[in-house]
Amino acid sequence: MSPALHPDISHLAFMLGTWKGSGSGEYPTIDSFDYNEELIIGHVGKPFLSYQQKTKDAATGMPLHAETGYIRPVGREAIEFVIVQPSGIIEIDEGSVEGHDEGGRIVVESTLVATTATAKDVSGVRRRLEFEADELRYELDMAAVGQPMQFHLRATLARADGES
Amino acid sequence: MSPALHPDISHLAFMLGTWKGSGSGEYPTIDSFDYNEELIIGHVGKPFLSYQQKTKDAATGMPLHAETGYIRPVGREAIEFVIVQPSGIIEIDEGSVEGHDEGGRIVVESTLVATTATAKDVSGVRRRLEFEADELRYELDMAAVGQPMQFHLRATLARADGES
Repeated sequence: MSPALHPDISHLAFMLGTWKGSGSGEYPTIDSFDYNEELIIGHVGKPFLSYQQKTKDAATGMPLHAETGYIRPVGREAIEFVIVQPSGIIEIDEGSVEGHDEGGRIVVESTLVATTATAKDVSGVRRRLEFEADELRYELDMAAVGQPMQFHLRATLARADGES
Repeated sequence: MSPALHPDISHLAFMLGTWKGSGSGEYPTIDSFDYNEELIIGHVGKPFLSYQQKTKDAATGMPLHAETGYIRPVGREAIEFVIVQPSGIIEIDEGSVEGHDEGGRIVVESTLVATTATAKDVSGVRRRLEFEADELRYELDMAAVGQPMQFHLRATLARADGES
């Protein structure tokens, strides 16, 4: 049984759920690619959300990307993401939440991206997430490997469970 | 069905599994406490391990701490951890692996700890993990809230599934 939602994250309830769908990515240094994604946003009754994302190559089904972390409210209008990637990248994002009747919009930008000694060079990330009822659309910009901040990923996911 | 272990992490197979047990924590700024823990170390066929930890208060059963991230081999003797905590803390640890017939020893220390604007101040972490067959013992030191690096946590976990 799920614990009750902590009052400090009640305004973020629209994010909760298991989200599945597909997206595509591009970057000047790589071939464009298509992927399938599962994103689980959950909670344990405390004032934060957990965030677990996995993607698979749309053509081969092989695991492609993963990232995991937590989402922290700062009052009702600000929000923090802390996210790590298996490629050795850690990221702190800060930004804003605008909730509305059927969902909400979240825009965050990295205040810190750091990497392990062996990771590739990523210097900045911007994430825009638009939740509307049972649909989540997101875009991600990235500055990496010497390239300036620019569009990298776009996906559309649908709520895959009964949570709302 | 689990995918085959990537050759680059085959020497870390002793870490894989669902580990359950109990531990205790202390720090000059807080009351000592006891906790129950579940730690899941997994893989998806790629050259890294996933790491998901949750603890509950031993007395009340309420969620206490959580952290999640990834473990990356660097050759056979070095290792990197990237770990994120819902309290808004992200951590890069680097260190060594010494495998032996029945398990292995991992010692890592943070090369970077960073926090969101609203997180408490943590400036350093050391982790020592000792795997021996179906037992995992770990200790964690922490420098935080103006205190120097010192002992914080100790736990003993047992492998709770059939993986080995």
